[in-house]
Amino acid sequence: MYREEIKILDCTVRDGGLINNHDFDHRFVRAIYQALSEAHVDYMEVGYKNSRKMFSSKEFGLWKFCDDEDIKKVIDGIESKMKISVMVDIGRVDMGDIKPKKDSPVDMIRVATYVKDIDKAIAMVNEFHDMGYETTVNIMAISKALDNELNEALHQLEHESKADVVYIVDSFGALYQETTEFLIKKTRDIIKTKEVGIHAHNNQQLAFSNTIEAIIHGANYLDSTVYGIGRAAGNCPLELLLGFLKNPKFDIRPVLDLISKEFIPLREKIEWGYIIPYAITGILDEHPRTAMALRQGAKKENYREFYESLTGSGGEID
Amino acid sequence: MYREEIKILDCTVRDGGLINNHDFDHRFVRAIYQALSEAHVDYMEVGYKNSRKMFSSKEFGLWKFCDDEDIKKVIDGIESKMKISVMVDIGRVDMGDIKPKKDSPVDMIRVATYVKDIDKAIAMVNEFHDMGYETTVNIMAISKALDNELNEALHQLEHESKADVVYIVDSFGALYQETTEFLIKKTRDIIKTKEVGIHAHNNQQLAFSNTIEAIIHGANYLDSTVYGIGRAAGNCPLELLLGFLKNPKFDIRPVLDLISKEFIPLREKIEWGYIIPYAITGILDEHPRTAMALRQGAKKENYREFYESLTGSGGEID
Repeated sequence: MYREEIKILDCTVRDGGLINNHDFDHRFVRAIYQALSEAHVDYMEVGYKNSRKMFSSKEFGLWKFCDDEDIKKVIDGIESKMKISVMVDIGRVDMGDIKPKKDSPVDMIRVATYVKDIDKAIAMVNEFHDMGYETTVNIMAISKALDNELNEALHQLEHESKADVVYIVDSFGALYQETTEFLIKKTRDIIKTKEVGIHAHNNQQLAFSNTIEAIIHGANYLDSTVYGIGRAAGNCPLELLLGFLKNPKFDIRPVLDLISKEFIPLREKIEWGYIIPYAITGILDEHPRTAMALRQGAKKENYREFYESLTGSGGEID
Repeated sequence: MYREEIKILDCTVRDGGLINNHDFDHRFVRAIYQALSEAHVDYMEVGYKNSRKMFSSKEFGLWKFCDDEDIKKVIDGIESKMKISVMVDIGRVDMGDIKPKKDSPVDMIRVATYVKDIDKAIAMVNEFHDMGYETTVNIMAISKALDNELNEALHQLEHESKADVVYIVDSFGALYQETTEFLIKKTRDIIKTKEVGIHAHNNQQLAFSNTIEAIIHGANYLDSTVYGIGRAAGNCPLELLLGFLKNPKFDIRPVLDLISKEFIPLREKIEWGYIIPYAITGILDEHPRTAMALRQGAKKENYREFYESLTGSGGEID
């Protein structure tokens, strides 16, 4: 028995792009598009729609900007029912860059926000909705959200926003299944007219199980990435999710092929996954930036010292 | 708030030994003993107590046999409250090798069994109990156990065995949290006078979350291994479990040090962890032996073909 409402959104290129400045070439992204289409994944997120006035194309690859021409180079000529998604960060998008849906290869725009920026997120998402796009609001750093503020944000999203989906984002990979259950139930209680989604990070090897937990409690939009690629510890592995879901339309085999041919070689060049400093920031419910910095330096395997630096052993907390 | 009854059993050397024929030297095992003692882990399992008449010491390392003298070389001179465990497989132990507890450095003997061998397991575990050992019965391949047979085995364990703990063992890494909940609740319903334990494998990155699920539903004996080492995909990582448990006696830091110094170099030499063929056998609820064979050959990254060979694409199932 399967729940037909469940949709898989693959964010391999978008979240994976966070570890290589979004510098994937057309061939690689096209190979992913081909395989995910054959696997019958519902959405593929290709990157961020950032303003070229704020970010240099010398410093960042194509998928920091997601120009229509680049998307077309990836999708043209491949038979597919898969929809294309892009993400926007508040304050980093030039609204003039966004064409009406009818003139764009993009189907969905997702607005990433913290609880504190929810009013800005709602204003933006309503504009995208009115331009014809499917839309979501993704509430990041959910493990740090204060309960009263999260409640207010969810009520605003339910009553003031035109978003189709509200996502819970475990940015720090800090959630255990009991907290995931609590958050998804709360969200479903308040968000009655929209779908609920989950985006989990894998610092503690819990991204897949937290995604299952979210499914159990009614989330229908599920983010995942091929071979779990993504910033720091990465995300819920798509192949595991496909192995779990029962909808017969899904086919795991093209994704297995894609991992063999593209992701095993890629993993030799860039790093993500179960790496102890990322586990430590997950355990401590901290942003992975300190661990990412550690991994660039000579002390990258010096886990105990890193843990003690974050927990301030011997120091006082005021 | 923590549950004082919770005990961590580290089976790094025992389950890790399954990937190198139990060939760890005294220095390595002593380093583990030192670190786990400082971390206040409750039990350390050092290997199997197999008969030297059945297995050659040319083919297998020290921890296939766990002679008292080898255990003493590891523990002597280190201050520790940690107890020592060994495992026995039915039909592979020479009962004459087992001394009474008072003459042995071993504290606990664990009997690994399939449901079908439960009568033999009970006979053995009762002998070990009468010799003065703490004892457990570990029911392997639980994901394949038929419900009526498992029920009968659990009733027998409750009424006929002197074991202190009954373990549920997810040998194939096939359980999701709902099935873990079902099995732990069932076991706790029948096993009223003993403790319940969980030993999870990590094929689908679910060993840690299934261990948490077992804790939630009342399991108090928790198996784990340093950096998740163990056969095929390995086990629940000790460091994650220590990060989750709230008992202030536990200290994660010596384990972080141990990973840095011993397990990062070891992982370069022997393979375990999230490896797609093991994920596939977990998804399909199969023994990992086909995947282990694949990893020894030239087609080790040929995931799609491997998946199709196991699912018999196009073939008929009678």
